[in-house]
Amino acid sequence: MNTHFSLSQLFSPRSIAVVGASATPGKIGAMPISLLRRYEYDGRIIPVNPRVADVQGLPAIAGLDALDEAVDLVILAVPAAHAAAALERACPGQIGAAVVFTSGFSEIGPEGQALQAQLCAVAKARGIRLLGPNCLGFMNIRSRVYATFTPAASGEAIKAGGIGMVTQSGAFGAYAFCMARDRGLGLSHWISTGNEADIDVADCIAYLAHDEDTRVVMAYMEGCRDGDKLRLALAAARDAGKPVVVTKIGRTQAGAQAAASHTAALAGDDAVYDALFRQYGAVRARSIEEFFNLGYAFDTWKQPPQGRRLGILTISGGVGALMADEASDAGLTLPSPTAAVQQRLLERMPFGSPRNPIDVTGQAVSEPGLLLSAAEDVLADGIYDAMAVFLAAAGSSEALWPTFETFARTMQARHPKVPLAISALFPPARRRELEALGCLVFADPSAAVKTLAAVVRPSENASAGPAIPATPSQPLRASYNEVQAMEALALAGIAVSPCVVVQDAEGAVAAAGSYSGPVVLKIVSPDILHKSDIGGVRLNVIGDAEVSAAYDAIVDAVSRQRPDAAQDGVLVSPMAPRGVECIIGVHRDPIFGPIVMFGLGGIFVEVLKDVSFRLAPFGRAEALAMIAETKGYAILSGARGSAPADIDALADALVALSIFASQHRGELESVEVNPLVVLARGKGVIALDAVITTATAG
Amino acid sequence: MNTHFSLSQLFSPRSIAVVGASATPGKIGAMPISLLRRYEYDGRIIPVNPRVADVQGLPAIAGLDALDEAVDLVILAVPAAHAAAALERACPGQIGAAVVFTSGFSEIGPEGQALQAQLCAVAKARGIRLLGPNCLGFMNIRSRVYATFTPAASGEAIKAGGIGMVTQSGAFGAYAFCMARDRGLGLSHWISTGNEADIDVADCIAYLAHDEDTRVVMAYMEGCRDGDKLRLALAAARDAGKPVVVTKIGRTQAGAQAAASHTAALAGDDAVYDALFRQYGAVRARSIEEFFNLGYAFDTWKQPPQGRRLGILTISGGVGALMADEASDAGLTLPSPTAAVQQRLLERMPFGSPRNPIDVTGQAVSEPGLLLSAAEDVLADGIYDAMAVFLAAAGSSEALWPTFETFARTMQARHPKVPLAISALFPPARRRELEALGCLVFADPSAAVKTLAAVVRPSENASAGPAIPATPSQPLRASYNEVQAMEALALAGIAVSPCVVVQDAEGAVAAAGSYSGPVVLKIVSPDILHKSDIGGVRLNVIGDAEVSAAYDAIVDAVSRQRPDAAQDGVLVSPMAPRGVECIIGVHRDPIFGPIVMFGLGGIFVEVLKDVSFRLAPFGRAEALAMIAETKGYAILSGARGSAPADIDALADALVALSIFASQHRGELESVEVNPLVVLARGKGVIALDAVITTATAG
Repeated sequence: MNTHFSLSQLFSPRSIAVVGASATPGKIGAMPISLLRRYEYDGRIIPVNPRVADVQGLPAIAGLDALDEAVDLVILAVPAAHAAAALERACPGQIGAAVVFTSGFSEIGPEGQALQAQLCAVAKARGIRLLGPNCLGFMNIRSRVYATFTPAASGEAIKAGGIGMVTQSGAFGAYAFCMARDRGLGLSHWISTGNEADIDVADCIAYLAHDEDTRVVMAYMEGCRDGDKLRLALAAARDAGKPVVVTKIGRTQAGAQAAASHTAALAGDDAVYDALFRQYGAVRARSIEEFFNLGYAFDTWKQPPQGRRLGILTISGGVGALMADEASDAGLTLPSPTAAVQQRLLERMPFGSPRNPIDVTGQAVSEPGLLLSAAEDVLADGIYDAMAVFLAAAGSSEALWPTFETFARTMQARHPKVPLAISALFPPARRRELEALGCLVFADPSAAVKTLAAVVRPSENASAGPAIPATPSQPLRASYNEVQAMEALALAGIAVSPCVVVQDAEGAVAAAGSYSGPVVLKIVSPDILHKSDIGGVRLNVIGDAEVSAAYDAIVDAVSRQRPDAAQDGVLVSPMAPRGVECIIGVHRDPIFGPIVMFGLGGIFVEVLKDVSFRLAPFGRAEALAMIAETKGYAILSGARGSAPADIDALADALVALSIFASQHRGELESVEVNPLVVLARGKGVIALDAVITTATAG
Repeated sequence: MNTHFSLSQLFSPRSIAVVGASATPGKIGAMPISLLRRYEYDGRIIPVNPRVADVQGLPAIAGLDALDEAVDLVILAVPAAHAAAALERACPGQIGAAVVFTSGFSEIGPEGQALQAQLCAVAKARGIRLLGPNCLGFMNIRSRVYATFTPAASGEAIKAGGIGMVTQSGAFGAYAFCMARDRGLGLSHWISTGNEADIDVADCIAYLAHDEDTRVVMAYMEGCRDGDKLRLALAAARDAGKPVVVTKIGRTQAGAQAAASHTAALAGDDAVYDALFRQYGAVRARSIEEFFNLGYAFDTWKQPPQGRRLGILTISGGVGALMADEASDAGLTLPSPTAAVQQRLLERMPFGSPRNPIDVTGQAVSEPGLLLSAAEDVLADGIYDAMAVFLAAAGSSEALWPTFETFARTMQARHPKVPLAISALFPPARRRELEALGCLVFADPSAAVKTLAAVVRPSENASAGPAIPATPSQPLRASYNEVQAMEALALAGIAVSPCVVVQDAEGAVAAAGSYSGPVVLKIVSPDILHKSDIGGVRLNVIGDAEVSAAYDAIVDAVSRQRPDAAQDGVLVSPMAPRGVECIIGVHRDPIFGPIVMFGLGGIFVEVLKDVSFRLAPFGRAEALAMIAETKGYAILSGARGSAPADIDALADALVALSIFASQHRGELESVEVNPLVVLARGKGVIALDAVITTATAG
């Protein structure tokens, strides 16, 4: 969807009409005009107010019908009840976009919802894109467009920079604006989406992805209605090389409950959002502090780290160990320099440690060249993706400033692919000089390390999904028993246990005879979920007499305990070879469609909730990632002396399931394959049972 | 150990002699004198330097033998090779304590170690307590004693306050001093312990625990040599009501490796330190930022939260949900206000949410009294232990300041037991006014919530250990086979599986007959660890013929596969009733003595490393806490439809094991009880196997 062309009229308007324009300071119709004038917006400002002839020195018109030319942007600062009528006065095609500040729309209930619908209809009929209503508006810092009334904007100016910020919460957005300003961060845009009657967060992310001035998108999200649009927007940002840092509320059950009462059920399933962000390379922040550390990092570095190998240089061995702890928590590795490099380091700094963390000790203070030479030695072998440096109190020394400035400048020139974060207490001006060189500065060394880790995932997980086959697969049945479900999965490319469905004991014996080794007999019925609980399953049956007896026992037990259940026969299968039992499945998310799940069976799924998710469809890289995320992965890769399992085949099964689910999007309610047995490496996987629930069957 | 009386001469000296005193700025012998004079230290300063008549305007003496009276403190700022000789010139009893700045002692190797030993001998012979050597000295801010040469101290002054800071790393300590100062925190003491030839971190913690001016201890630790002294010091702080916030390096494997190369093997086993801190109520920080947030919190609040029930008041519903996420992560609960209170809240703020987080919306800005009345309503029922308030950008408004000041002041007056943290961007002066009222202020709302959680544990886990029985228990054997080990545990108060050891098949049959139901037969041998691997175990044996055959088969298998192993017979036991299999054990830590471990058997211990530790001895509350810390606890408390297990009996077994281990401290290398089967509630526990390894046996 090519939204960004029309959004240029919104975010870079050449003319702005303010409906409800006022001269009274503090009024929402006054602030945009005073801000636009303060910042010397170079487009045309047209106050619209029937009661006055001019506003803040600009000639006013009575209504939008009095416009003498097309206007890119209208700001509506009139009460909700009058908004539609005010906009209605404009001719179709005359206005590009409207920002609606006022509240009293869908957020207050049905009456407001009706007003909002009316407003939307009027806008749509005139080809006007809408931001809001009930929003704080937006700022395009570089173009000096201040279409907002937030008091935060009337304080000190914020500098123009590379961060495009979009928020679904006005209160959070205003606070974030103040925090960004306090921290000296530069913004390209600041956008508050309000009720999202038309334009939503996804539209803004897509817009910022294509905006030349934006280097990184910071998005604060509460919920989403159009999952596909959000996926496309995140993909657009990834393809444009623009990292997206996102804070999404409702990550825990407590938070989700709070979010639900705040946004009335839009917050959604957090595990699905988490999967979304992982899949599309968005970096999720868990606190506002982390949100800003990440945004700051992406906007400051020339480029993010390309991997997880961290080098630590430190003046304090103890703090180096603390930084190593944080690196470990954050999933970074600390490879040692080569023996030759260690030797070279020790020659220069005999009391230091050359192993990573590289402890240069206080000698780096008395010998200013040591820090740089140690870094050069360490980076010569090219085995580090990022470097964190702790300077202790030495960073505060003005006498040592030239040393550190040279260090950062040289590092940037000679190792531009290795992002650098320095932890020290620099005065603000010195800090900014380092940041201009692409060097991050943190007072807390743990924050330096943690930030160097969080930024890696976009390049690691940038995996495009698979092409969905154009030819439609087999249409779905109305409902599935176990055998039919297994057949469907087999057609979808997932290996299933062979079976024969028989209608009598003789058939069972014949079927068992066709397999070698012991067999399983199971009742086939779409009405029975827990077959083994009612004696509907017999394992390890060998020999004709046992097979025949097992058949009878099953039919008898099921008939007695579930006389209501339809019996479609008894399934005979060979006992599955030994392997690791997993559960894979699909469920339908109302926002994002089919979601694939993976976990190890038993305690892992049931007690530890050790599962991972991905949005269908996805490719092998994503499947491997979702498997590796679980704790159960330790078993699959070979623990307790057992051989490693066929993880590749497991990944392929997950991919196949994701394609199947995508092809039948909207028709499938859920799929559960339990167990999917993962055999030894090279031996594949085999599904032993499956349940498919269609959307119609319920 | 009553160390703190002699340490008063060190930390509150009435007179200070500076050996190696200098007038040259920057020299380590010059800075203490200039600092003492700058801060107007009111005691006597005696420069000691044979080459000059006076230093910085004070008359100098040539050596410590020229002292005309006793002196509390000597600062040694002379090269390592001369330190002992300089100190030797003093008469016994004439000097209370010495701080040794210079390096070149044990930290550089054997030669330095020899100098350090010499220095210690000289000090000891004269009754002088030693701080250092190779340390940055200390500051007693309130008494204006600046016995330090760190450049950090010569910058802006730090204010006196309630935080006593002690550090094992000079570089970290200097940085921490700067960070504390930048953050506006007030210190009572700042102490750098250096090589800890005499006085160590534990001594300083104990001293600060008894210091009137100190409200909270912040300790940065790398390692420890005397575990008992540290335990006593932490207990003293706890008993004195002084929270201890500790940063300990080496929390992860990567960090421990870095720490080991930094401190040469002192860093120790981190799981043991973690247990130590939990048991003694010290609060462990995972980053320097958290270290300071906690120290700040303890020094600012009138008292810490007494529990985990958090109330959240917010102007932004979205950020409220984010705070709820952090509360959840941090182990805090968010109980809802009563229905009556919710009703009352909604009457006042119809567009808000009364559920916790309590969303007062922007109405709290337009109606200044709303915030306070909402808080009062919420706190009236007394169900909250702490309150976090997010003010968004409104906190920056000078017009609203009186509202917020009234809010904080009223909360402190009417709810002094409910610590308050406000998240907003206040100007520094306003921030300090709130802090003077005992209110915490954070820019990041997640930090506000997280800090409110971390402070709870001291009051929760303040459990004194059990009294160790004075009568010595049975002395240990030189070595233990399984049966002897089980007997020892039974004597210690842990229920073990009954058994009979037989020497022939007939005996086995007779023994089996004395039990009802199936039996287990196991080879008894101190030389065989994995009995089942070599056919040395038979389970579920029923009937005389089977018992006899099992006996023969076991003896045969063991004789063939382990002809070297001593066979002490075959043990016959009843098959254990079903329950949850756990592992409990003891290992000997070189610093802290016997450490008790707990975990669920199988995957939990072997794959997930889901174990908890405590230092022996401990009581029931600590045992219950260590059980509840594990993920396996979910199984014990009843998951997957199974009945809850006898956790109380499990706790008693852990306590008994800890007492046993303490009674035989130094004699026991390790104990492993695997499995300890925890039966259903009320049915107790039963040990099925045990291995005891004595320190002599190896």
